[in-house]
Amino acid sequence: MTDPAASTVPADLGAHVRDLCKAAREASAALARAPTAVKDRCLRALAAAIRQRSAELLDANARDVERARREGLDRAALDRLMLTPKTIESMATGVEQVAQLADPIGAIDGVRSMPSGIRVGRMRVPLGVIGIIYESRPNVTVDAAALCIKSGNATVLRGGSEAIESNRALAHLVADALEQAQLPRAAVQMIDTTDRAAVGHLITLPEYIDVIVPRGGRSLIERLMRESRVPMIKHLDGVCHVYIDDSADLDQAVRIADNAKTQRYGTCNTMETLLVAAGIAPTVLPRLGSVYAAKQVELRCCPQALAILSIAGIGPLVAATEDDWRAEYLAPILSIRVVAGLDEAIAHINTYGSRHTDAIVTTDHPRAMRFLREVDSASVMINASTRFADGFEYGLGAEIGISNDKLHARGPVGLEGLTSQKFVVFGNGEVRI
Amino acid sequence: MTDPAASTVPADLGAHVRDLCKAAREASAALARAPTAVKDRCLRALAAAIRQRSAELLDANARDVERARREGLDRAALDRLMLTPKTIESMATGVEQVAQLADPIGAIDGVRSMPSGIRVGRMRVPLGVIGIIYESRPNVTVDAAALCIKSGNATVLRGGSEAIESNRALAHLVADALEQAQLPRAAVQMIDTTDRAAVGHLITLPEYIDVIVPRGGRSLIERLMRESRVPMIKHLDGVCHVYIDDSADLDQAVRIADNAKTQRYGTCNTMETLLVAAGIAPTVLPRLGSVYAAKQVELRCCPQALAILSIAGIGPLVAATEDDWRAEYLAPILSIRVVAGLDEAIAHINTYGSRHTDAIVTTDHPRAMRFLREVDSASVMINASTRFADGFEYGLGAEIGISNDKLHARGPVGLEGLTSQKFVVFGNGEVRI
Repeated sequence: MTDPAASTVPADLGAHVRDLCKAAREASAALARAPTAVKDRCLRALAAAIRQRSAELLDANARDVERARREGLDRAALDRLMLTPKTIESMATGVEQVAQLADPIGAIDGVRSMPSGIRVGRMRVPLGVIGIIYESRPNVTVDAAALCIKSGNATVLRGGSEAIESNRALAHLVADALEQAQLPRAAVQMIDTTDRAAVGHLITLPEYIDVIVPRGGRSLIERLMRESRVPMIKHLDGVCHVYIDDSADLDQAVRIADNAKTQRYGTCNTMETLLVAAGIAPTVLPRLGSVYAAKQVELRCCPQALAILSIAGIGPLVAATEDDWRAEYLAPILSIRVVAGLDEAIAHINTYGSRHTDAIVTTDHPRAMRFLREVDSASVMINASTRFADGFEYGLGAEIGISNDKLHARGPVGLEGLTSQKFVVFGNGEVRI
Repeated sequence: MTDPAASTVPADLGAHVRDLCKAAREASAALARAPTAVKDRCLRALAAAIRQRSAELLDANARDVERARREGLDRAALDRLMLTPKTIESMATGVEQVAQLADPIGAIDGVRSMPSGIRVGRMRVPLGVIGIIYESRPNVTVDAAALCIKSGNATVLRGGSEAIESNRALAHLVADALEQAQLPRAAVQMIDTTDRAAVGHLITLPEYIDVIVPRGGRSLIERLMRESRVPMIKHLDGVCHVYIDDSADLDQAVRIADNAKTQRYGTCNTMETLLVAAGIAPTVLPRLGSVYAAKQVELRCCPQALAILSIAGIGPLVAATEDDWRAEYLAPILSIRVVAGLDEAIAHINTYGSRHTDAIVTTDHPRAMRFLREVDSASVMINASTRFADGFEYGLGAEIGISNDKLHARGPVGLEGLTSQKFVVFGNGEVRI
C-alpha cells in the first residue's frame, strides 16, 4: 500500500511549483473581475460543502493526527492540527462571515477635477496572487482561501506537512466551490507535497506571486525574510508594552496591565514589558505584583521595581537583564521597568520594542497624544489592553495576518490589506499641453 | 592641489555609509514629531538660501560641468547636469510650493466605535528614513529633500558622481536650513563620494533605511532590483498603450494618440504601442498615419495595420516583430497593432505592457468601465492622453517617483506615498474578555 500522505508531485519540484503558480496567475484575472455575487456564491457553496463533507474531513484529519502522533509531535502542535465537529462548524461559519463582508474591489474614491479638465480618482483592485505559507492549523486553508477569493485574489497555499491530508481534502472543497460558481478551479492552488524545498521555490517567483503571507513561528519568518524575493505581509515578533503614567487611573492601570499580560500568554499582542512612571510605581506596583503573584507570573525587574516589590513582600523576583527588554516570552513571565516619565517610556519602546502594539495608561491628554504620535508601532493605544490588536476587534471583519512593516498594510491585515489602489482618469479628449 | 571633486570619505566606505544611515535614523524621530510650522520654516529658509547663494551654486556646478565635459559626457547628460539662474529659481520656487502643500502627518481617519467600547482609527505617520538614489540632475537633491522634510522623513541622498560638487553645495544649504529651523542637520544626509560601491552599502541596510526611491535609467533600477534588501518605490519601464475602440470619437482618437506619442518622446508615460479595433482601423489609421509621418515617427506595424497604411500611401513602414510589443522606445518610434476588439486589447496590454499607464478612447460606457477595471496598470484612463500620468497633473502637488508595483503606492508618488498609517485606539479602561 502506498503512503496515504504521499503527494502526487512529480520529480522536478521546482518546475511543478512554477507551473502551479503560473496557473494561479492566469486564473487571477477571472477572479479579479468576478462580480461580488459570484464570489459570495462560491463562498456559500464552500461553507455548505464543509458541513456536508465533515465526515470525510474528520477522516482525513484523523489520519494526519495518527501519523503526527507516531512521529512524536508535541501536545500543543497536535491540538492545533486536530479538527473536531466544532472546529469544522466554525470554519463553515467563518466562510459565511467573509461572504457577508463588504466587497472592497472596484470602489472608486476621491475623484477630483483637475485644471486640465481630467477627473482623477483611485480604484481599489486585488493584488493578484497571494502565497500563504502556514504551519499545522488546517483551518488556515479555508480561512485564507475565503479572504483571497472575496478580495479577488488567486491563492497558492502551502500548509504544514503534518496536515497534508486535511489540507488536501479542504483544498478539494475550495476548488469544487470555485467551479460551482463558474470561477476557475486554478484560482486556489495547493502545493501538495511534504517536501520542504517547495517553500524555497514559492518565495522566489515574483513574476507569479505578488505577496507572501507567512503564518508561523519565528524561525519560519526569519528564514523567509532572508530568502524571499517576493514582498511579505508579516511580523517577526510582538514585544508589546504597557506604560503606566503618573497620572493614570489606578484601577484602569491594574485592570489593563493584568489583562494585557494574563488574558492569554501565547499571543503576539500580549504585553511582555511593563513600564511604570517613578511617581506612581510605589502605589501601583504592589497591587499589580499581588495580581501577578496570584497567577504565578514570573516578574523580572529593574532595580527600582525590585526594591518596591520586595518591600511590598511580593516574590519570588528575578533581576532583569538587558536581554529581558527585548524578549517575547509568550509565557507567564513579565519584565518590569520603572522609568522617569513619558520621554523615557517612549525611548524605551522605540528602542527595545518590535513596533507591534503599545499602550499608555494616563488621564493626561497632552501626554496621551504625544504617546500616540511618537510611539512608532503598528498599533498605539490609550487606556486599553494591547490584547485588542486584532482584526476582529478592529472591525476589519477578518484577519489574514499582522504586519509590523511600514510599507503597505500596518497592524492587523484584513480584506483591504489584500488590495491596492490604482489611479483612474476620466477624460473627454483631453491632451497634455 | 587636491581634486576639487574629491570626497572627504574615509577608507572604510561601508562603515562610513552605515554611520551616516544610522545618524539619519536617529534624527528621524525629531523630524517625525516636528510641527508643520517648523518644517515649513525650514523649507522657506532653504528656498531663500538657494536664491541668496545662487552664485556659489553656479560656480560649483560649473566645475562639475567642466569635469564632465573633459570626461566626455554626452550632450543630453550635460543638459541634465547643468544649472542656470532659471533652474536655480525654479528649484527655490519648487521648495516653496512643497511648503504650501498640506502636511499629511498626524491626520487621524476613520475613527469608529467598536462593540468592546474602544474607538479605532488610523493615524498617518512618516515611513522613517528614505534613501534616494539618482543620476545627473542636481535639482533632485533639493526636490527630494524638500518632500522628505515635509512628510517628516529623514533622508539619505546618493546623487550621480558627475554632479558631486553641485550636490554637496545644495546639501549644505539643506543642512543649514534644518539647523535654522532647529531640526537636526543629520536628518538629511548626503553620501559624499564618487565611489560607486556606496550604493551597494546603502541598499543593504534595512535596519536604518525604510524605503529606497531610485531615479534613473533601466540599468540602475535592474541592478537595485537584484541587490536591494530594502523595499523600493520604483518602476522599471513604461510600455504604455492607447486603445482606440470601434466606438471612439474620431477626432478625440487622433488628438489623444498624437499627443500620447509625440508631445514628448523620452518620458515614461509616452505611448509606445497603439492598439486599434479592426472596425475603426480603416478610418482612423490613415489619418493618424499622416500625423505621425509629418512628425517623422517610425511606424512598426502588424500585418493588418501595414496593409491599411500602405493602401493609404503612408510610408515608410516597418513590419513589427514580437520584440516591438515589449519595447519602450523613448524615441519617435511607435508600434501599431489592429485587434478584434476590447478583449484582445485588454489581453495584449496585460501581456505585453509594463503596468504603467494605459488609455482607452471610446464612447461606449460599458466598455470604458470594463477597460478601467480589467487593465491591471498603475494608471488607467478613459479618453485622455497617457501623458497625464504625473504627480502634478494628478493634483498630488509634487512627485518623488512613479511606482509600477502593487504594494504600497501605485502610480505617481507624492507626499502621501512617503507615509503610512498606523492604528490608534482610544479606550477608557477597556480590556479583552
